[in-house]
Amino acid sequence: MSLVLDRAAQDLLFREARTANAFTDEPVTDEQVQAIYDLVKYGPTAFNQTPLRITLVRSPEARERLVGHLAEGNRAKTASAPLVAILSADNEFHEELPHLFPAAPQVKDLFFAERPVRENAAALNAALQAAYFIVGVRAAGLAAGPMTGFDAEGVRKEFLDDDHTPLMVVNIGRPGPDAWYPRSPRLEFEQVVTTV
Amino acid sequence: MSLVLDRAAQDLLFREARTANAFTDEPVTDEQVQAIYDLVKYGPTAFNQTPLRITLVRSPEARERLVGHLAEGNRAKTASAPLVAILSADNEFHEELPHLFPAAPQVKDLFFAERPVRENAAALNAALQAAYFIVGVRAAGLAAGPMTGFDAEGVRKEFLDDDHTPLMVVNIGRPGPDAWYPRSPRLEFEQVVTTV
Repeated sequence: MSLVLDRAAQDLLFREARTANAFTDEPVTDEQVQAIYDLVKYGPTAFNQTPLRITLVRSPEARERLVGHLAEGNRAKTASAPLVAILSADNEFHEELPHLFPAAPQVKDLFFAERPVRENAAALNAALQAAYFIVGVRAAGLAAGPMTGFDAEGVRKEFLDDDHTPLMVVNIGRPGPDAWYPRSPRLEFEQVVTTV
Repeated sequence: MSLVLDRAAQDLLFREARTANAFTDEPVTDEQVQAIYDLVKYGPTAFNQTPLRITLVRSPEARERLVGHLAEGNRAKTASAPLVAILSADNEFHEELPHLFPAAPQVKDLFFAERPVRENAAALNAALQAAYFIVGVRAAGLAAGPMTGFDAEGVRKEFLDDDHTPLMVVNIGRPGPDAWYPRSPRLEFEQVVTTV
């Protein structure tokens, strides 16, 4: 009753959406990825730094190389998913800040001159954007299968610029038969929220 | 056209939603926070670890203490917001894993026996949940004002358990007059997405 978002949207994005481990053969098009990006690009980040970068692994040869860097349990589903995306943080995001944060272009040099500061900011803010992206995949009527079980350094060397840190690999498609495990329990409100 | 989510929901959560810097006096109730949590608790995390913890800063005395730890530019708006929440990562989340991930309770000891591993996992997964929370605030028809400009160690010592790492402080309420800056530009699809 306290939510404004309609029930169908709540179900689509959170209540009925599930992490998929099996997919149908239906392709995920570039148009769908563009529509997802054009929605979730508006999600907030600190100073609008938007450090998330997305690598779509489409060629069979690239897919095979990626699968080799995944934990054993993540290989079969990733080999057969319609689309796989590597989500990474660009630690040199500050180069775009004068354009992205025109209200205070000095922020680039004032706050982000040092690489360790940028790495911390990019890790947090790209993670926020990764969550927006997962929500966006669901908004497109697709299921996401985010995974952190992979050799990060191997993926970085194989697929990314030196300045990028991989955050997760996400399988994307329509859920196939037996696509998920039973829903696991969640913590109660009282276990998570305290008031001072 | 490629999205299933209806246009009103797209606007509510992403296109028209904005980071607010000014709020009306209308209170944000515990019922609203409960409804937000009950929606976004379903957002996916690795092994369902759900490390996000939320501290609602409701008493005037606690609010004043919090404001003292914020960057200068974040003080006035936080002093006057209807509700302020500290979002943090619980680095001891693994204690709940046998309950939260019943499919493989051994994950607790197999993957998360070491604190640095837990800190890395909690930082990423609590950030995902922070983004779901921001989306949830918007789903309640409210505006969020997330901030990372604060003395993290000061906030931790003052408000949190030793095992928690603060991620962000979020002002929550109905946007007031002149609540936001003009929308800043976003990166083009081609600047963010590459295909291999």
